[in-house]
Amino acid sequence: MDTMQAILSRKSYRGTYLKDPVPREDLVAIMEAGLAAPSGCNKQTTSLIAVDDPRILARVKAVIDPPKAETAPAMICVLTKRMIAYRNRCYATQDYAAAIENMLLAIEALGYASCWYEGHLTDTDRIGRKMADVLGVPQDMELVCMLPVGRPAESRKGPEKLPFSERAWFNGYGQA
Amino acid sequence: MDTMQAILSRKSYRGTYLKDPVPREDLVAIMEAGLAAPSGCNKQTTSLIAVDDPRILARVKAVIDPPKAETAPAMICVLTKRMIAYRNRCYATQDYAAAIENMLLAIEALGYASCWYEGHLTDTDRIGRKMADVLGVPQDMELVCMLPVGRPAESRKGPEKLPFSERAWFNGYGQA
Repeated sequence: MDTMQAILSRKSYRGTYLKDPVPREDLVAIMEAGLAAPSGCNKQTTSLIAVDDPRILARVKAVIDPPKAETAPAMICVLTKRMIAYRNRCYATQDYAAAIENMLLAIEALGYASCWYEGHLTDTDRIGRKMADVLGVPQDMELVCMLPVGRPAESRKGPEKLPFSERAWFNGYGQA
Repeated sequence: MDTMQAILSRKSYRGTYLKDPVPREDLVAIMEAGLAAPSGCNKQTTSLIAVDDPRILARVKAVIDPPKAETAPAMICVLTKRMIAYRNRCYATQDYAAAIENMLLAIEALGYASCWYEGHLTDTDRIGRKMADVLGVPQDMELVCMLPVGRPAESRKGPEKLPFSERAWFNGYGQA
């Protein structure tokens, strides 16, 4: 799929998924896209775990309460290590966000649907840590996001967005 | 350009740029790609200013010390508004990082080069605020990143990255 088409057609999908398993080669391609994202000072703070084994997937989903993307046949969990990149600065959030966006575009280009689930996992009930424990993730890494992967069973509709002229300008704030 | 190709071939470029101006339609397409990124709770916290007027560009570049991307014929400045999206959570960093990654891919797909300059602008000498002042950006928005845009005059070489097997696994941490 053309790059601009993937960027413009990508939408967050919160509907049900078809049962078709996601081939390993597609999950690898999606994760390669994620790892190809830049990272501050090339610290490569982002790591990934794809879950496609139905038994492990069921155990991971069991700790997501309330449930999200229950019907997805696979998911990719995003891990971050909040290390210092430069002086006292850490760019781990930027790093994993860029990796997630790359993966959402690869998912779109391969004909799957997904949604960026982050706040649900990193909230005070620490669902991300519970998922990380199921997957054996060390304590110095945080599981900050999960991306379901599967074929959408329903039509997708993105949220309303502000017009270009209210968010983008030329040569000065607010200038057309 | 194919989506996966753009994702895998994108590299940070820190060399010199050709003088060719960047057509407005390309800058618009790049900014549309940025605005198409998702944002936490659809708060659309990211705004953009493209700078292609040579006089304004010179004034903006004059406050970037030490200089970066001096020869680029255009740049896109990324603004963020750190508003609460959900409970006490702000996802503005994730929002602008996803927008930046989309723009870097659009830049790649259109045959230009760029680099994610963030730490240089947001460090203690507050270069981002000086750039924002040149561009009339209100105090409640931060200029957190600039992306030069132009045709590269030199060859590009990306940094070495860890192999897939050290950053991506299946069904459990560290599992092939």
